[in-house]
Amino acid sequence: MKRNIIKPSILPGFMELLPKDQQIFNDIVSKITKVYEDNGCLAIDTPIIEKAEVLLAKTGGETEKQVYNFQKGKNNLALRFDLTVPFARYVAQYYNDLVFPFKRYQIGKVYRGERNQKGRYREFYQCDIDVIGKEKLSIDNDAWVISLASKAFKSIGLSNYRFQISNRKILKGILDELEIDKANEVMILIDKYDKIGREIFSNELESLIGAYKSEYINKVLDIKGTNKERIGELLKLNIKNKDFNEGVGELKKVCYILEILGISDEEFEINLKIIRGLDYYTGTVFETILVGNEEYGSICSGGRYDNLAENYTNNILPGVGISIGVTRLFFVLKEIGFIDKYEMKKELDYLIIPIGDTIEYSLEVMKYIQQNGKKTTVYFEDDSLKKKMNYANKIGVKNVILIGEDEVRKNKVNIKNMISGESKSIDYKLL
Amino acid sequence: MKRNIIKPSILPGFMELLPKDQQIFNDIVSKITKVYEDNGCLAIDTPIIEKAEVLLAKTGGETEKQVYNFQKGKNNLALRFDLTVPFARYVAQYYNDLVFPFKRYQIGKVYRGERNQKGRYREFYQCDIDVIGKEKLSIDNDAWVISLASKAFKSIGLSNYRFQISNRKILKGILDELEIDKANEVMILIDKYDKIGREIFSNELESLIGAYKSEYINKVLDIKGTNKERIGELLKLNIKNKDFNEGVGELKKVCYILEILGISDEEFEINLKIIRGLDYYTGTVFETILVGNEEYGSICSGGRYDNLAENYTNNILPGVGISIGVTRLFFVLKEIGFIDKYEMKKELDYLIIPIGDTIEYSLEVMKYIQQNGKKTTVYFEDDSLKKKMNYANKIGVKNVILIGEDEVRKNKVNIKNMISGESKSIDYKLL
Repeated sequence: MKRNIIKPSILPGFMELLPKDQQIFNDIVSKITKVYEDNGCLAIDTPIIEKAEVLLAKTGGETEKQVYNFQKGKNNLALRFDLTVPFARYVAQYYNDLVFPFKRYQIGKVYRGERNQKGRYREFYQCDIDVIGKEKLSIDNDAWVISLASKAFKSIGLSNYRFQISNRKILKGILDELEIDKANEVMILIDKYDKIGREIFSNELESLIGAYKSEYINKVLDIKGTNKERIGELLKLNIKNKDFNEGVGELKKVCYILEILGISDEEFEINLKIIRGLDYYTGTVFETILVGNEEYGSICSGGRYDNLAENYTNNILPGVGISIGVTRLFFVLKEIGFIDKYEMKKELDYLIIPIGDTIEYSLEVMKYIQQNGKKTTVYFEDDSLKKKMNYANKIGVKNVILIGEDEVRKNKVNIKNMISGESKSIDYKLL
Repeated sequence: MKRNIIKPSILPGFMELLPKDQQIFNDIVSKITKVYEDNGCLAIDTPIIEKAEVLLAKTGGETEKQVYNFQKGKNNLALRFDLTVPFARYVAQYYNDLVFPFKRYQIGKVYRGERNQKGRYREFYQCDIDVIGKEKLSIDNDAWVISLASKAFKSIGLSNYRFQISNRKILKGILDELEIDKANEVMILIDKYDKIGREIFSNELESLIGAYKSEYINKVLDIKGTNKERIGELLKLNIKNKDFNEGVGELKKVCYILEILGISDEEFEINLKIIRGLDYYTGTVFETILVGNEEYGSICSGGRYDNLAENYTNNILPGVGISIGVTRLFFVLKEIGFIDKYEMKKELDYLIIPIGDTIEYSLEVMKYIQQNGKKTTVYFEDDSLKKKMNYANKIGVKNVILIGEDEVRKNKVNIKNMISGESKSIDYKLL
């Protein structure tokens, strides 16, 4: 019978890894998970498919165009495009069953039909933390969630990350004080600063709000020095505006808590150009660049929102969150050579190779070894010894245990250390 | 501004858990994962969305009707309905980069638009292992994968599971010998045995193939005794048919390896009524019931297929696999009260509660405690002590550390054990 072979392939914009890289990817995710759990965050899991009307309650513009939605029966369905909107729905839905402040983490896939470009995926993992308060939430949390991102990066051995932190209230206050009525346009322009570059930015800003105000804003965005000095410069502007002063006060507190938590000036800097779009965030905002690899964009972002679930409930639920885009992060780490040097401590300890009819004894040895918590498997196939050793080499096992009929008779095993190449015959109970 | 509130809800047929149950669910999944990894299985991850033509290369009938598919741009897309088909595609696609026999595991969500009934979900997790060989694969693997399901169940503390094992070749051989030309209809009927009951089954079988042959098949299906005795009864039928003898030989070997691996007769039984549908499986087939809770159906199934990826490649890739349907399993375990007695060892060790302006010292204490690997978080909100202690009670923390200005001055902490209720003032370096 002639079969019809369909070429095996996946859709463009989806990441799929070979086993070696997959083990590293999973190791990174499990280290991030450990940091989140060790700091008292609780896992939740929400469906990937939700009612379109619920998921798209707030969105508009770019995001909505990117959403995967479709009909099944009478229902309009949509795939989640982030973990924050489903979390808002979750908190509103189970409000009476949750304990606030609720520190939750969630790790899962999200979907965006983005234009296919390098490092942008249509299916990608996010690793999120959000802390949600009932009516109020201390600014300390803003620093705390950023410190967990720092711990997560350190736990995977990454060191060249740098948080770029701002507070939306600061610019809002300044724009108010300058009596700029095109405040939104200015914010959108600042959001694009890094993409369009200083010159285009300045020209466009000047044509929007005139030379004098434009110069003032450029001066603010240009503030330099240590983080403490930057706060000092902001205070020296001597602006009497509620939003501005709240923003600077909050930013100062975030810096202070980060410092206590051992996050150095090397790890974070105040950067007033960070906006994170117009929706959503109302106070602290931050992104994370890799120093020396800025061209890849932010690998972790987040911020503070006054009222997370306003589309689903009348309860006021302020929150602050972070999101590590681990699929993108993995892509970047692969590009810069970090993954190829990544140290995995999860390899198989033993591969047991029966030679001849020694399966019963071989399985006894396996059981014994596994009682001691070692990772072990058996090569069951009836192949040549050469082929079996070739397999051992390819899968990168630490030790091979050869069991022939002679070993069974003598109640021993022949163990070969695949790193040193050394072999010896011993009682398996000494393993 | 009056806002338009959308009622927060999810689609019917989707499982969503409150934090307490979610922690247990995740603990179960991580224990299954550990068993798979400790036994040398490698993780892979495939997209949830694939090209419809690839995912639906083989399916027809019931499954195809249940698939979520939709169009995006010019592409016909489908959500995966199991992890086996994507794995077949994966193995064919990366054939040259993989090491065979390839022992892979995958844990992820799959989608089926099933009729909404108790315990049947439209989005559910599967925890799969498959071992794939190049052209051949030892029957030992069939027993080995079942033994891993056994280990996984034991690791979560489950004991009343029982594997129901058969080999498709046995019935195939018998039907051949009886010269039954309606072999497929008979197989489909046997597959429904447990649903329709003995009486309807016998009547329908008789009207299909007549009284004499029907009686013979009933006799075979009725074989009783220990697993060894059942094998003996099969051999006594003295059927000279290649498929039959291969099937009995394989089943005997599976039982033998399971016995060596310490899987007792309590844990598995030969049951020739197990068919697992007509597609796909060619040798070993098995399901898993919970003794005393049989009405919930199989919680883990799988079997042997001669050629996994025949729709995607001309390479011959025999395999054997298991799949634990962990969403359904969780539902059943919740129903039978197992979840409510489940012991979690993952709670928070310490909740630090600053009283007054002691945040700096409190964070120092947190850093110190975390160096010792303890799970710790801080209550940042400015609330009454009563409210703070209430929070500690609700989240179920083991110890509360109270830090007032007095503690800072004396360089101590006030620690309260929430289980015993005991309190003491100590140097935090003694924690």
